[in-house]
Amino acid sequence: MITSASNQRVKQIVQWQTKAKARRQDDVFLAEGPKMYEEAPRELIREVYLTETFLGNLRGRREQTAINIEEKLQATGYELVTEEIFARMSDTQTPQGILTVLKRPVYELRKILETDRPLLVLLEDLQDPGNLGTILRAGEGAGITGVIMSKITVDIFNPKTIRSTMGSIYRVPFLYVENLKETIGVLRKKGIRVYAAHLQGRNYYSGFSFAEGTAFLIGNEANGLRRETADLADSYLKIPMEGKVESLNAAIAASLLVYEAHRQRNM
Amino acid sequence: MITSASNQRVKQIVQWQTKAKARRQDDVFLAEGPKMYEEAPRELIREVYLTETFLGNLRGRREQTAINIEEKLQATGYELVTEEIFARMSDTQTPQGILTVLKRPVYELRKILETDRPLLVLLEDLQDPGNLGTILRAGEGAGITGVIMSKITVDIFNPKTIRSTMGSIYRVPFLYVENLKETIGVLRKKGIRVYAAHLQGRNYYSGFSFAEGTAFLIGNEANGLRRETADLADSYLKIPMEGKVESLNAAIAASLLVYEAHRQRNM
Repeated sequence: MITSASNQRVKQIVQWQTKAKARRQDDVFLAEGPKMYEEAPRELIREVYLTETFLGNLRGRREQTAINIEEKLQATGYELVTEEIFARMSDTQTPQGILTVLKRPVYELRKILETDRPLLVLLEDLQDPGNLGTILRAGEGAGITGVIMSKITVDIFNPKTIRSTMGSIYRVPFLYVENLKETIGVLRKKGIRVYAAHLQGRNYYSGFSFAEGTAFLIGNEANGLRRETADLADSYLKIPMEGKVESLNAAIAASLLVYEAHRQRNM
Repeated sequence: MITSASNQRVKQIVQWQTKAKARRQDDVFLAEGPKMYEEAPRELIREVYLTETFLGNLRGRREQTAINIEEKLQATGYELVTEEIFARMSDTQTPQGILTVLKRPVYELRKILETDRPLLVLLEDLQDPGNLGTILRAGEGAGITGVIMSKITVDIFNPKTIRSTMGSIYRVPFLYVENLKETIGVLRKKGIRVYAAHLQGRNYYSGFSFAEGTAFLIGNEANGLRRETADLADSYLKIPMEGKVESLNAAIAASLLVYEAHRQRNM
């Protein structure tokens, strides 16, 4: 049991929680809570930290989730830490008593594009970690093939992003690319139609057919898409906005688009 | 110019920022940033606080927004405060230098229901302020008639909610009701169809017609709708979810539903 805040592993976790660079250097990310542990691909799990309270509560329960977690803990192993130390390691105000350290998954564009009729979300410079996580979660729900992000999009391994994916981080392929404009070119050559969600679009999104390979390009929360990026799309599309609304939240916009594609593909 | 943190008005603002009860007692809410000031209905504005930096930047600019704000400031009046005091009054980490105190608007169910074919969102015990604000924003975009909330739904005048409405707080009618179940009864008597977004729904939302008066019932983020509330709906409806997604973020679910209604009503 780890009881000291000066323990090297505790210090390491705090670094990983707070510093994107430290996570990147060590090729890891952190996921908190029982659901995120239960759904974690076993081959990615590197370390697991628990409180005694968490373990005690688990043993008193008979639901499938609790049974799954107990079995998995036997397979992956774990380290006990005191409540106080756990609170220090945790990124949340009400820690759930289990924290998992995982190796980062690696995806390739080539493989993502092997799918029949890909449905992709392209994110340019998104900055809000919650938005990114929510896009992964809704994207999985709508059956997307993957998320492709510009280099300066917020870190997908940010603890807030991980939390708001509700587990989709384990299942939706994603990729940061050096040059999003080049990637758009690659997609278009493959016959994937690229649509820029844009306030200056003239046609509403529900008027397009997304039956074939489709990619939706979503811009930064404050500034939208860069003009030179939007210009590379096959079409601009517009989300109707009544009242005096000037734009929608980026996660809402992305979700409306991927779910419209899902609706059309499943009629 | 206010220069002292012990100034009574500064203390008052801090109370309003942090305590829902203080806001309620004094019948006010706060809105930060130039956009929220520009869009604020003049008859609701009670006090305006600015920094000299904000005022200086404003005077150097020629955009319509800056001109609108300057004119409005002459009409509403304002109080200058130092940067340091403003940082203390502000709820954000990067204060924008303008804070507005407003009287709360009051809406009546009767008036909301006078609309032809109302499109309503009913929220039961939603707890995340950002979700609530995002629902107002997307709701205005989809042309909803109003948002009706159970008594223990998060405070709509929470600074985070206000911020995430991006101004929709001024334009979308809303109402807290003592008893949401009773309100559902009132709506149904008026011929409004009430749909419960529910994981146990058998039919996908896009299979229903929302052409006539429609209300979407959305539950708490963690627990969904209470059974006895969901049972009062005309129908359950389901949002399709691929992969291993168990539920969507409440703001995403609400947005998909209201935008589907908008799509159907504008085909």
